[in-house]
Formats: sequence, structure tokens, C-alpha cells
Amino acid sequence: MASQISRIMRPDDANVAGNVHGGTILKMIEEAGAIISTRHCNSQNGERCVAALARVERTDFLSPMCIGEVAHVSAEITYTSKHSVEVQVNVMSENILTGTKKLTNKATLWYVPLSLKNVDKVLEVPPVVYSRQEQEEEGRKRYEAQKLERMETKWRNGDIVQPVPNPEPNTVSYSQSSLIHLVGPSDCTLHGFVHGGVTMKLMDEVAGIVAARHCKTNIVTASVDAINFHDKIRKGCVITISGRMTFTSNKSMEIEVLVDADPVVDNSQKRYRAASAFFTYVSLSQEGKSLPVPQLVPETEDEKKRFEEGKGRYLQMKAKRQGPAEPQP
Amino acid sequence: MASQISRIMRPDDANVAGNVHGGTILKMIEEAGAIISTRHCNSQNGERCVAALARVERTDFLSPMCIGEVAHVSAEITYTSKHSVEVQVNVMSENILTGTKKLTNKATLWYVPLSLKNVDKVLEVPPVVYSRQEQEEEGRKRYEAQKLERMETKWRNGDIVQPVPNPEPNTVSYSQSSLIHLVGPSDCTLHGFVHGGVTMKLMDEVAGIVAARHCKTNIVTASVDAINFHDKIRKGCVITISGRMTFTSNKSMEIEVLVDADPVVDNSQKRYRAASAFFTYVSLSQEGKSLPVPQLVPETEDEKKRFEEGKGRYLQMKAKRQGPAEPQP
Amino acid sequence: MASQISRIMRPDDANVAGNVHGGTILKMIEEAGAIISTRHCNSQNGERCVAALARVERTDFLSPMCIGEVAHVSAEITYTSKHSVEVQVNVMSENILTGTKKLTNKATLWYVPLSLKNVDKVLEVPPVVYSRQEQEEEGRKRYEAQKLERMETKWRNGDIVQPVPNPEPNTVSYSQSSLIHLVGPSDCTLHGFVHGGVTMKLMDEVAGIVAARHCKTNIVTASVDAINFHDKIRKGCVITISGRMTFTSNKSMEIEVLVDADPVVDNSQKRYRAASAFFTYVSLSQEGKSLPVPQLVPETEDEKKRFEEGKGRYLQMKAKRQGPAEPQP
Repeated sequence: MASQISRIMRPDDANVAGNVHGGTILKMIEEAGAIISTRHCNSQNGERCVAALARVERTDFLSPMCIGEVAHVSAEITYTSKHSVEVQVNVMSENILTGTKKLTNKATLWYVPLSLKNVDKVLEVPPVVYSRQEQEEEGRKRYEAQKLERMETKWRNGDIVQPVPNPEPNTVSYSQSSLIHLVGPSDCTLHGFVHGGVTMKLMDEVAGIVAARHCKTNIVTASVDAINFHDKIRKGCVITISGRMTFTSNKSMEIEVLVDADPVVDNSQKRYRAASAFFTYVSLSQEGKSLPVPQLVPETEDEKKRFEEGKGRYLQMKAKRQGPAEPQP
Repeated sequence: MASQISRIMRPDDANVAGNVHGGTILKMIEEAGAIISTRHCNSQNGERCVAALARVERTDFLSPMCIGEVAHVSAEITYTSKHSVEVQVNVMSENILTGTKKLTNKATLWYVPLSLKNVDKVLEVPPVVYSRQEQEEEGRKRYEAQKLERMETKWRNGDIVQPVPNPEPNTVSYSQSSLIHLVGPSDCTLHGFVHGGVTMKLMDEVAGIVAARHCKTNIVTASVDAINFHDKIRKGCVITISGRMTFTSNKSMEIEVLVDADPVVDNSQKRYRAASAFFTYVSLSQEGKSLPVPQLVPETEDEKKRFEEGKGRYLQMKAKRQGPAEPQP
Repeated sequence: MASQISRIMRPDDANVAGNVHGGTILKMIEEAGAIISTRHCNSQNGERCVAALARVERTDFLSPMCIGEVAHVSAEITYTSKHSVEVQVNVMSENILTGTKKLTNKATLWYVPLSLKNVDKVLEVPPVVYSRQEQEEEGRKRYEAQKLERMETKWRNGDIVQPVPNPEPNTVSYSQSSLIHLVGPSDCTLHGFVHGGVTMKLMDEVAGIVAARHCKTNIVTASVDAINFHDKIRKGCVITISGRMTFTSNKSMEIEVLVDADPVVDNSQKRYRAASAFFTYVSLSQEGKSLPVPQLVPETEDEKKRFEEGKGRYLQMKAKRQGPAEPQP
């Protein structure tokens, strides 16, 4: 059974140029995914549970969405393993005055059912019924691939973003930014854990500030790398979301975003890395055309290493597309 | 003692043309009503309770409110029966630059006190003191009339809104819309039930999308039919708010809105109809003049029946007004 | 004519212990002040204007406000000079279940009318009518005193908050925190400038995170030092709000908060200091009793200097109160 969310985009959902923030779209995608997977995991009699976001696969923002348009977010369960659910989400923008509809996003999310009685207990997922036999086999392959990648990235990104006094323009230090957020009740599920979508929205917010500081123009999210949620974030935590630029191509910027959670009131638990991802942004002119971006000047050894890694990811994506060299804004 | 709420209207409260959404106003009306009736029901020593919205009488939007204006919402208790409270609410808009004040709404709401210990228990309401003797008798008549009407509408609107592929313009299927909302903590009272005002705001949002899709212009709420709240909606429910056009006159559109609640986590409880109402919208030109609307083309037998019923309600209201043929935008 | 704002306190307005954030209260205070002073400054025929917040005098939080209570904020104009308006605001909390009302705040705010046509032009304020003759003279004294103090503080706090790697607990570096915020449409007046109340809410948010990090308990705002708004903040700016602890007494913590605005999109304008203030917090036990706080360990010369200055302010306030040694939570 499919799930659908629709709502009008409001001034607060967008930047000053009227383009809806990528983070707002990511948050709606996650809400649709959470509804359909929680409903599915509770569809058989048994222990009650809530579906927690574990991972979002890489997603491109294919077309901008504007204030006044209606976003239609539809979700469908495409695969279930013993303990996880794969959800496919599509986002369409509709201009209700002209009737024009556009595909803006396709995303794949993975959820895990946590017991309502004991949130550290992962429950079993009722199997989904496939319409074609191959679907199960294809899903299993995607499941194995993401499992492998999650393990790899678990240990990546150990370091933190350290400010530097009086940085030069176009350096990493110049645009890097951190945001702290005290997790409030409305950020959370009934369990008292932060919705994955709330975290992603904050990640996009920081990435957008880094990009705007670097190129001082109107910027929009072009794509988001796979996001892994290493650990739950509880109500009352202070989360620090840090962003730093890692790579620039002619017309795109890659920004690494790290999320650390600090259970301030609970002394027994240390600060931990909760999530991380790479965001790609493009710079737009007043007319909405993509602009060249100032080239990033990596200074330290670490910055140079990250720049090369970013270049690798960029060239790989470019090869995959086999087409246009730059992300489509 | 009267209760008053005032606040400045912000960009997020309004549509792109700067007119405040009817739903924003309905939400403020309900907040004022909830404050005064909860205060009254706890004014005698006894079991603590919270006032839950049971019904809103038909209300007209007499004058538009704009961004930057201050909304003044004042509430007064006008009648009490053994188990319910009638609240009269007036809304004024104030332009603080020019000093102009306008009456934008008059609304009548009915509340029922629910015990804080056991939300299924309805408590007794302390009697209100009337300044004129006739007030009690007039109130009793209004009470009996709404009681009768609530019973009738309880069984109406059993059906649901079903999407149709590739609908033609001006048909019911073309503009019908659904919105799904996961009920979060900040939508709820201390009891964990959704505020009536939150539900009404979402209902107006869906009705507005239906109206905009149908006539592709700037549209505003002209009036809302009586809204009955059949049942409480708990925190953690997913609510589906569906809207479909039922009738068009020369210059107005009637949209039926249905609210269904789905306790996704609790399998023991089925999806149920929580509220329903008819919204009337008008279409405005850039200059704010009311425009003719495209005529609705009912296709199925049900649609034709609903169209005739809508026409009946329209003619009845027109006769009651004995004056201008069309709702005043 | 007095102005009044009332609304119910929701989960989103409070910390996990259910106490409403000081910042939420400051934001309501400012909204009430902006309404009454904008209304007054436009009360005579002439150029239209909007009242911009210039300064908030020191204010104590006398009693906590909780979720579910109704906040009543009332504002009154108490003095006018040629170009500025003094507004006195009182905040009461009402428990609508028990009927209990408490004074939670008294605040004094200063506004300046800016022309709607040219926001750099300050207009003249229509004179207010005093009921007692002494009021004008008393007001003039308050006006002169704040004018003097504003000039002095204009040049204070030139420095910025610099993070330090691996700080020790109880040091300034350990708890210092920064928050970045991209100014959106709903943060702004019709002019496109940030509401003073929005800035104060963010300042309290940062101060609260600093206090929670330092003492790892439930903390509440006890008082706020005078806040001066040195310069307007435009829509589209990125603002950095930084907080660092300056002083601890046995049961209170003083936190300095600095607000810097960065017009990212406009290259011609540099980052500037927009506001600054000192917040005092107390630590509360589960039962709401005030707890001793860990003593701050100043390390650098600057930190020691700021600690002594904080001690001076603390002793001065204590002497003024001539009563209990600690702020009343």
C-alpha cells in the first residue's frame, strides 16, 4: 500500500530567491517513509514498534521547487529483509495554477523497527508481497550492497571541524560553519528520538550556509550522498552539525557534513558521531542559470587529501551519468 | 471574564497574495475558545478537566486579513448546558500603520469538559451567570438545534475520496486532493489529543488546494459550514485530510473536507472519521475583486447528488442573507 | 492604549522539564512592544513608519512558566522622547486549571520609528499624554541614563569566541557554543529586518546550551542584562550567535552572548556586531530547587578579566536587591 504526503510550499520553506530548501524536501521524504514503514511493521499482531531511519541512499535534486507549489511525496515499500524495510520515495512538484508537474526527487530509504517497550530491541519485519519474482532478488542485492557500505563508512569521518582565526577567502576555514541545536519535543518521535528528517534538514541548512559563504550567490542543493544514521539521538541532547567544503568542480561544490550528539544532561554518555554525508551544491544567477564557482584552495595535508577524495567521487558520478558534466540544478 | 488573543500576522500565515489563510484564523479562534472554556470548567473546586472542541457553527469570513496586520481574537461564554459550553468569538483585524480596524469573523464554538484523569469521562459544567434572563432561553434553543444537527451529520459522509487517473479539467476528480499528517507533540493538548484548531487549519489548507486547482487563481475562504468533531485524535495517529469540490455557483465554490484518523501503531483500532465540513471559497483578481469561477462538471451519480445538495445549501444561505447573492470575499 | 498578547504555552516553547524558555517569553514581550509602539508612532497623520527595537533594560524572570499555562503579555507606553518610545511590559502566567496567576516578568523596551520609505531615516514620535506630571520628568531621567549606557556598551565586546581543542571540564572553552542562523522571511518585519524578539530568542537558546553544558542539569533563565541593538539585521544575512561563560557564583552562572551579522550575499558589507548581552542562569533539581553550580575555571588573562567584571555585576545586583543572595528561580 502506498503512502502519500502533499503540502503547499510556504515562504519559510524557501530561500530568499523562492527556491525550496533541499532540507525541507528531505524532511518530507523521511516523514512519508516513516509512516509507511511504521504502518507495515505493525501490520501483523505482535509487539508494537516504530520504524527508525537507518540510511538514505544517494539522491539527486532533479528540478527546483518553488513557494506556492504543492509537493507530492509518495512512498512505497520495495523490499524487506528480516530486520529492515526498503522504501522508495518519489517527489513531484505541482504548480496548481498552471497544472505543470515535475519530478524533483527519487530517494531510497532504509528503516529498522524498534520495540516501543525497549528501544534497543530490533523487531522482525513482516515480509512484503512482491508482484514480480525478480523483485525479491533485486532487493536482496541492494540490501547487501548498502549493508557493506554502511560498515565501511561507520569508521570514516572520525575528525572534527576546527575553526581557524582570520581565514583567507576560498579556503576551507573561510566557509566552514557549525550549528548547535537543542533537541526539543517536536523534533522527536513518540519514543523521544529525533526524526531522521529533522537531522537531514539541519544538515542541509549547514551545508547551504557553507556554500553561500564560499560563493556569495544564491545556491541550491544538487544532490546528497548516502546518509548513514550510526546511532539514535535522544530528546534533550545538544547536537552539533558542522560543515566544511571538500571539493569544487567548475560549477559545483561538495560539502561534508558531520553530526555529533552530546547528551549534556546525562554524564554517563559521551559525545558521539550520529550521522555524516556529502552534499553537492550549485550556484545560480538571478535568472536561475548555473554559475561558475570560485575554486576551493585546500591548505593543510588533510584538506588536500579530502579534495582528492571529493574529486574521485565527482568523476565517478560524472562517469555514471555518461552525460552532462555538471549536476543539473 | 472574556479572553483575548492578539498577534501579528506573518508571511507564513498567508498565501502568496498576502491574504491570511482562513485556517490560521480558525486556529486562533479555537485557541481563544479552548482557553476560556477550560478556565470556566475548572472555576469550581472539583475534578480537573480540559475543554475539548465538539463543534464550530457556520462562520463567514467578512473581510480579508493581511500580513503585518494584528489579529485580535476575543472570546466570551454565552451559554452552558449540563455538559457543554457555548463560546462566542469575534475576530478583528487592525492595521497598526493606518489604525483601521475591521470585523473579520464571528464564530460560535461548543466545548465539552473531559476529565484529566480519564479522558473518556465528561464532567459537569459550572453554570454561567446571565445578565439578561432571556439569554438562558435563547442559548437553550441554540443548544437543542446544534444537538439535533450533530446527530444527523454523524452518519453523513461515510465515503472516501478515491483518486482517478487522468481526470478532465473542471471535474471533481481533477481538483480533489489529500494531505497526510503525522500528529506530533506540538499539535496536541496536555492530554495528547490534537487541538481542534490544528485540524481546522489542515482542513482549510486542503480546501484551498482544491479551490486553487479548480480555478487557477488567487482564492480565499469565504465561509465554513458547521464542523463537527465526531471523535478525538490521539498523538501518533496519521490523519488523512481529503477535499473534493461539490458545487459551484457563479462566483463561489463549495468543497467538502473529510478527516480520517489512522492509529498506525495500534492495530486494535480501525481508521475512523474524525471530522467533516464544507468550505466555501471565492476566486479573486489581482486587484482583489471576486471573479467568476469555472463551472464544476459532476460525472458520477454520487457527484451529481452532492452537487444538488450543495446547491440546496447555497440557495438556503442566499435566502437567509436576503441580500447579496454571493459570499462577500 | 494598552496592548495585550495571550497564548497557551506548548511543548515546543519549553525544555524537557516543562519550563518555558526565557527566550520564548522575551519574544512575546518584544511582539507586544512592537505592536504598541508601531501603533503609537503612526497615530498622527504623516509618514508611515515601523518601530524598531533599540534596547531592552535588565529584566528578571521572577517565576517559572510551564507548558499548558496561558501567558498574558501586556504593554504600555510610559515615555516618549523626540525619536524614541519607552514601553513597559508585564508578563503573567495563568494556570487555567487552578486559576492561579503569577507575575513572571517586568521589562522595559526602547523603540525607534523608522520610515517605511527609507529605513535609514528616523522619524519623530508623537508625544504621549501623562496622567501625572512627574511621569515625564522620571521618563526623561530613564531616557538619559539608557542613552549614556548605550554609548558605553557600543564599543564593549569587540572580540569573538574562538574554539579550543580538547578543553577541560569547567573551563570557559568547555561550554562555549555557537549557533548560525540564516535569516528567513518569517523572522522579519515587513521591512525585511529581523524582529528584535527573534534575535533575543536565539540569544537565550545559545546561553541555555552553554549553561547546560557547564552544569549538566536542568537550567532556567534567571535574568537578562540590558540588551542593546547596535544595528539592524537584514533578511538573507547569516547570523552567528556565540555564548561563553564569564562568571559563576554559588548558585548562578553568567553567560555573555554576542550576535554578529554577515551579509553573505552582499560583498560590499562586512560582518558586524549587531547585539550583545549577559544572561544569568540557575541550575534546578528534579523538584525545581536551585542547585549549587560547578565553579568556572578561567584560564587566560581575558577570561580572568571577564570573571572579575562578572563578579562586579553580580555584587552590584546583590547590593541592589539588598535581600536574598541568589537570583530566585
